[in-house]
Amino acid sequence: MPSIQDLLQEITLLSSTSATLGWDQETYAPSGSVTFRAKQLAYLQGRIHKLQTSDSFREGLASLAGPNQRELTHQYERATKLPQELVELDSETSSLAKAAWSEAREKNEFDTFAPHLAKLLEIAREKADHWGYEDEPYDALLAEYERGAKTREVATLFDSIDTELAQIAAAAVEASASIPADFLHGPAPLEAQQTLNREVAESLGFDFSQGRIDTTAHPFCTTLGPADVRLTTRYEDHDFASSLFGVMHETGHGLYEQGLPASDFHLPSGHAVSLGIHESQSRLWENHVGRSRPFWEKWYPRAQELFPHLRGISLDDFLPAVNRCAYSPIRVEADEATYDLHILLRFKIERALLSGKLLVSDVPDAWNDAFEKLFGFRPKNDTEGCLQDIHWSMGGLGYFATYSLGNINSAQLFEAAQKNETVSSAFAQGDFIPLLAWMQKNVHQHGSTLFPQDLMQQATGSKTDPQPYLKHLRSRFTK
Amino acid sequence: MPSIQDLLQEITLLSSTSATLGWDQETYAPSGSVTFRAKQLAYLQGRIHKLQTSDSFREGLASLAGPNQRELTHQYERATKLPQELVELDSETSSLAKAAWSEAREKNEFDTFAPHLAKLLEIAREKADHWGYEDEPYDALLAEYERGAKTREVATLFDSIDTELAQIAAAAVEASASIPADFLHGPAPLEAQQTLNREVAESLGFDFSQGRIDTTAHPFCTTLGPADVRLTTRYEDHDFASSLFGVMHETGHGLYEQGLPASDFHLPSGHAVSLGIHESQSRLWENHVGRSRPFWEKWYPRAQELFPHLRGISLDDFLPAVNRCAYSPIRVEADEATYDLHILLRFKIERALLSGKLLVSDVPDAWNDAFEKLFGFRPKNDTEGCLQDIHWSMGGLGYFATYSLGNINSAQLFEAAQKNETVSSAFAQGDFIPLLAWMQKNVHQHGSTLFPQDLMQQATGSKTDPQPYLKHLRSRFTK
Repeated sequence: MPSIQDLLQEITLLSSTSATLGWDQETYAPSGSVTFRAKQLAYLQGRIHKLQTSDSFREGLASLAGPNQRELTHQYERATKLPQELVELDSETSSLAKAAWSEAREKNEFDTFAPHLAKLLEIAREKADHWGYEDEPYDALLAEYERGAKTREVATLFDSIDTELAQIAAAAVEASASIPADFLHGPAPLEAQQTLNREVAESLGFDFSQGRIDTTAHPFCTTLGPADVRLTTRYEDHDFASSLFGVMHETGHGLYEQGLPASDFHLPSGHAVSLGIHESQSRLWENHVGRSRPFWEKWYPRAQELFPHLRGISLDDFLPAVNRCAYSPIRVEADEATYDLHILLRFKIERALLSGKLLVSDVPDAWNDAFEKLFGFRPKNDTEGCLQDIHWSMGGLGYFATYSLGNINSAQLFEAAQKNETVSSAFAQGDFIPLLAWMQKNVHQHGSTLFPQDLMQQATGSKTDPQPYLKHLRSRFTK
Repeated sequence: MPSIQDLLQEITLLSSTSATLGWDQETYAPSGSVTFRAKQLAYLQGRIHKLQTSDSFREGLASLAGPNQRELTHQYERATKLPQELVELDSETSSLAKAAWSEAREKNEFDTFAPHLAKLLEIAREKADHWGYEDEPYDALLAEYERGAKTREVATLFDSIDTELAQIAAAAVEASASIPADFLHGPAPLEAQQTLNREVAESLGFDFSQGRIDTTAHPFCTTLGPADVRLTTRYEDHDFASSLFGVMHETGHGLYEQGLPASDFHLPSGHAVSLGIHESQSRLWENHVGRSRPFWEKWYPRAQELFPHLRGISLDDFLPAVNRCAYSPIRVEADEATYDLHILLRFKIERALLSGKLLVSDVPDAWNDAFEKLFGFRPKNDTEGCLQDIHWSMGGLGYFATYSLGNINSAQLFEAAQKNETVSSAFAQGDFIPLLAWMQKNVHQHGSTLFPQDLMQQATGSKTDPQPYLKHLRSRFTK
C-alpha cells in the first residue's frame, strides 16, 4: 500500500502535469488539438481523483499532523462526498452550458442559456447538499475558494460598505470627467510593451528564471511546478498601460506563488490559501503599487523613453489619467473605483439563485434593476448584462465574492505593511522589495497552514476589515 | 483486468503527455523548472513502462492480429527483456555522461568524457545481450530505430558507395569555389523569415490548424497528439535560407506525422515506421523539393519581396548559391553533398566500438584519421571531431546510420514518385501537393504495418537502393 507521502507526490506530479497541458492549450496549442487534449486532461483528472479518494489516502491521513492533516482531510472529505454520477453530470452539463452561453451571447438571448443555468444550479445545490452547510447552499460552494468563510458574514460585510462604495464610485466618475487622458493612447509597439512589462515585473521581484510571460486573450497566472510560474497578458497596440497593469496584477499572483515554500509543493502548506488572499496580492501590486505616485516617479521616465508620445506630458498630468474612472457595464473593463459594484451585484443575484429566492427566468430583470440602482443606467442588453461572464456556464458558482474580499484584504495588508518603517520609506523611494519581503513573511510563507481570516488577523491585527479599503478609495478618488 | 485496448489508450495518453512536457521544456520552460520537470517525466515514463510490461498487456496481445500484434509483441519483448536495474543504471549513467560531455567539449578534452563513454558502451552491449542479436551488438541497438535492418547489410550498402560519395563531394566542393553566394547574406528580419517559412510549409501541405512552428536552439519535430504536430526552427539574422531549409526539413517530418492514420494513434499502424523512413521524408522536402529549380521558380519572387537584398540577383545566380557545398568538420553544418561522409565515419567508429575492435582511448585518433581520409584535412580539435555530437552521451548508440538510409530512401522514393505523370508535371509547375499525395499513399498511410524494407519494395519496386541517390547527387553536383 502506497504511503500518504507517495500518494501526495504522485498527485502533485499529475496535477502539475495537467496544469502544463492546460497552459499549453491556452497559449500555443493549435486549434485541432482540443479534442485529444480534453481526453488527456480527463485521464489525468481521473487518476488524481482516484488517488485522492483511495483507501490508502484515507488511512494515510492519520499519519499526518497539524494544518496539512486538517486541510487534506477536508479535501478528502469533499472529494469523497460527491457521488461519481454527479461529478460526471456536472462536467457534461457545463460542457453543454458553455456552448449554449456562447450562443446566447451571440444572439443576445438569455433564454438560450436559461435552461442550462437552471440545470447547473440544480447540480450546484445537490453538490452543496452532499458537502453539507449550516445556513445556505452558497456556504458549501464558497468553501471551495475561501476556507472558513460564511456567506452570511460576507453579505454583512458587503452590505456595510455598498452605499459608501457607490458614493465613492460616483464621486470618482464625476471627478474623472475633467481629467484629460487621451494622451495615454499612442503608438505602443509590442516589443516596447514587453520590455516595460518585463522590467517592471522583474523589479517587483518576479523571478524569470522560475517563470515567464506569454500572450493570451484572457490573462491568467498558473503554476506548473515549484519553480515554474507562468503569467499571461494581452496587448492593445495603442494603450501600453492596459497590458502593464494587467501584468502587475498577474505578477502579484505570481509573487505569491513564488513566495510559497517550494519544498512543500505537494502539501497544503506549500499552496495558496484562498482566492480572497490570492486576489489581495494581485490587487496590491496592480493598484496600491502600480497606480501610486512613488511607482510612477520611478518608472515614468522609462515609460517616456519607450513611448515617445508621453514625452510632452508631465507626471502630474499622467498620474491622474491612470487613475481615471468611468462606469462600464462590463466587469472586466471596470476600474478600481467601480469594480466592486459589479461583484456585489453578482454576489447578490447568485446567492438568491442558489437559495431559490430568485428564479432563473427573472435573472435579466433582476440584474438590470440592481445594476441601474448601483450605476444609474441599464445595460443595453443581456450580453452586456447577466450574460457577460463565462463563470456560471462553467458551473463556477460561489467565488465572485472573493474578488471583493481580495480588494478589501489588499488595502488592509498594505496598510499594515506600511506601518513598518523599512517598508514605507523604501516604498516612498520607489523600492518595493521590502513590501514584497513583508508579504512573503506575513502571507506567502504560510501557505494554507492558517485559515484566511486567521492569516489576516495575524498579519494585520484584525480579521478582514473594510475600513482601510474605504480609506484608500476615499483618499485616492475623493477630495 | 484492463483490456489491451484500454492499456494502449492509457499508454498513448501518457506518452503524448510526456511529449508535451518535453516540447515545453525545449521551447518555453524557464531554466529553474528543469529539476521538477525531470521528476514529472520520470514518473510518466515509469507508468508507461509499467503498463507496457504488465501481465494484462502480455495476455492482451493474443487478442490482436496482424502487424499491430507483431509490432506490439516486439515492443513488449524488448521492454521486458531489460532488467529494471539496467534501465536505471542506463538513465543514471547518461545523466552524468551528458554533463561530462559538455565539460569535455568546453575544455576540449576527450579524457573527461572517455570513462563515461566506456561505461555507456558497456551498458549498450549488455542491453544488446539481453535483447539478443545474430551477428553483432549493433544489430540489437539498430532494431530500435530501423525494424528489420542488419548492421552488416547497412555496412555493405555504405561500403558500396563511400568512394563515389567522396568523389562527388570533392567535385561539388571544388565546383562551389567559383559560385558566388555572398548575396545570400543580407538583412533577414525575424518576421519576414517567419512569414516565408509559414507560407512555404503551408503550401507544401502542412496543416497549421493541427500544428505550429516555434523557436529552439536545436530544431526538431515532435507529435503531441493525433492532430498536434510541433516543428521548431532557429533564425540567423542575416541568412534567411538557413531557417527556411531547416523548416522544410522539419515540415517533411511533420507531413509524415500528419499523414499517419489519426484513428490509429494508439497503435503501431498509426505510428511512423522507422528513422530511416522518417528522414527520407524530411530530406525529400528539404533537398529534392527545396533546392530544386521548380521550387524556386515559384518562390523566388516572394523571397525577393521579403528580402530586398535579393532583388538584383537573378534566379540563375541564386539557385547555384543555395546548392553550394563546402567541407565542414561539423555534421550539422554539412550540406547535401558532404553530409553522408559524416555519417559513414561515425557509423564505422561506433560499430567498431560496440564490437570491441576499437578502444575508447583510441577514438580521437581513429576519428581524425578517418576524417582526414574522407575530407582531406584533420579537425582542429576533438570538440570539432569526435566530441561534436551529443548523442553518444545520451546513450544514443545505433542510429546514426539511419540518417544516410534516409538520404538514400529519399532519392529512391522521389524517383518513383516522379514516374507518376501527375506528380512530375505538377512538380515542374511548382505544385508539390501531388507529390505529397503520393507519399501519403505509398509511405505515410502504412504507419508501421510494413517493415521499412517492405515499404520501400512496395513503394518503389525495390528495397533500399543507392543508385537513385548517387544519380541525383551526380546530376546536381557534377557536370
